[in-house]
Amino acid sequence: MQINLQLIPFPPNPVFLSDRVVVVIDVLRSTSVMTHAMSQGASEIIPVATVEEAFQMAKAFPKGSIILGGERESKKIPGFDLGNSPKEYVAEKVKGKKLILTTTNGTRAFHLVSIGREILVGSFLNIGAITQRCLELDKDLLIFLSGNEGNFSLEDTICGGMLIELITREKKKSISLTDASYCAQILYQRFQNKLLEAFHLSDHGKGLIQRGFEEDLFFCSQINVTNIVPIFREGVIKI
Amino acid sequence: MQINLQLIPFPPNPVFLSDRVVVVIDVLRSTSVMTHAMSQGASEIIPVATVEEAFQMAKAFPKGSIILGGERESKKIPGFDLGNSPKEYVAEKVKGKKLILTTTNGTRAFHLVSIGREILVGSFLNIGAITQRCLELDKDLLIFLSGNEGNFSLEDTICGGMLIELITREKKKSISLTDASYCAQILYQRFQNKLLEAFHLSDHGKGLIQRGFEEDLFFCSQINVTNIVPIFREGVIKI
Repeated sequence: MQINLQLIPFPPNPVFLSDRVVVVIDVLRSTSVMTHAMSQGASEIIPVATVEEAFQMAKAFPKGSIILGGERESKKIPGFDLGNSPKEYVAEKVKGKKLILTTTNGTRAFHLVSIGREILVGSFLNIGAITQRCLELDKDLLIFLSGNEGNFSLEDTICGGMLIELITREKKKSISLTDASYCAQILYQRFQNKLLEAFHLSDHGKGLIQRGFEEDLFFCSQINVTNIVPIFREGVIKI
Repeated sequence: MQINLQLIPFPPNPVFLSDRVVVVIDVLRSTSVMTHAMSQGASEIIPVATVEEAFQMAKAFPKGSIILGGERESKKIPGFDLGNSPKEYVAEKVKGKKLILTTTNGTRAFHLVSIGREILVGSFLNIGAITQRCLELDKDLLIFLSGNEGNFSLEDTICGGMLIELITREKKKSISLTDASYCAQILYQRFQNKLLEAFHLSDHGKGLIQRGFEEDLFFCSQINVTNIVPIFREGVIKI
């Protein structure tokens, strides 16, 4: 198995993607929101790029069957039901509902990798389950980091590095890593058991604290709180 | 002082560049070659993007005053005087000569950052001198890594991380780091005193070994063998 990891969220080479399993990671906060919302019973999630697209799509479904969620500049979008704090996505609000979600970094990432063989939604919350699925699929892997407004993101890289560390521990032989994969693994080793320290150093973490979302850092740093593996296929995320 | 570091060699935002000191790093091997050639008495270096450009430019100077150097696929270019191994650039060959250099990653990088306030040529060979110059200039810094054919490069990032570590040690207060700067610093801390181990892990290092250039890895891993600080200005590198 070859594990590559894309440190910056530019569009990957399509040739390179077609036979790979892709794990999309946006720790703060969209893949954490997706994972938590699915674990709380949301029936599916439709990630869309723009606010307009979200409102437009909502019209296609019966009222009461959908939830509009997401953020711009970290804040809830006017007219939306929920923002981008995972703790908002509780069963009482999302169970059985379709969630239409738009965020600055994370939702865009899914469309950039949409031709991958299998596209998984990864976060610290479900990192063990993602590891197991990658081992079962046993294909070359691309870990795609959503980044922070096009830039490198420390917390996403550490999460990607944890996935590499866990896969490498389980499947010791015949794993080939790229320079970027080694980088992520080393960052994870530096911050394992100290994830919140890393979140407090990171540009995105600092921005969220300034905007009053410090609790989300703690929430998104929790490891293995669910075993679900959300999968993105034909524009929709389901379990 | 704010220190940013670009992990992937895409063109930086010009607005962001105009008042920054830029340090270009291509450890394996072009900025190591440049640093060593200048320390051996080359009068100046003209980095050019293509082989054709190199031949064309050579015509503008008297025979015997110039040296053509560089590589494609790590190997010396047919018709050129020297390849891209730093050890070839000895005083007997380069003293008092203009060097026209074209390499896959490094020479292109200089043109991408050419509007920076001051553009320095960095490598492990002169890392202490580069540190001192950055401290004297006391401006915001962009460390620009040449990468490996457009991809992230472990060895360049470690060298950038060493520069950050040394600057931070000397000037403890008022340094602000980005996520990418923290990443590089942590990679350096992981591999300090073990640079060759990192070079052997890296894609580019492995490629050079396969092509018979293992000695260059040792050469380029030497720290502070010269105090010169080559500067790129108006298309030419001089001390």
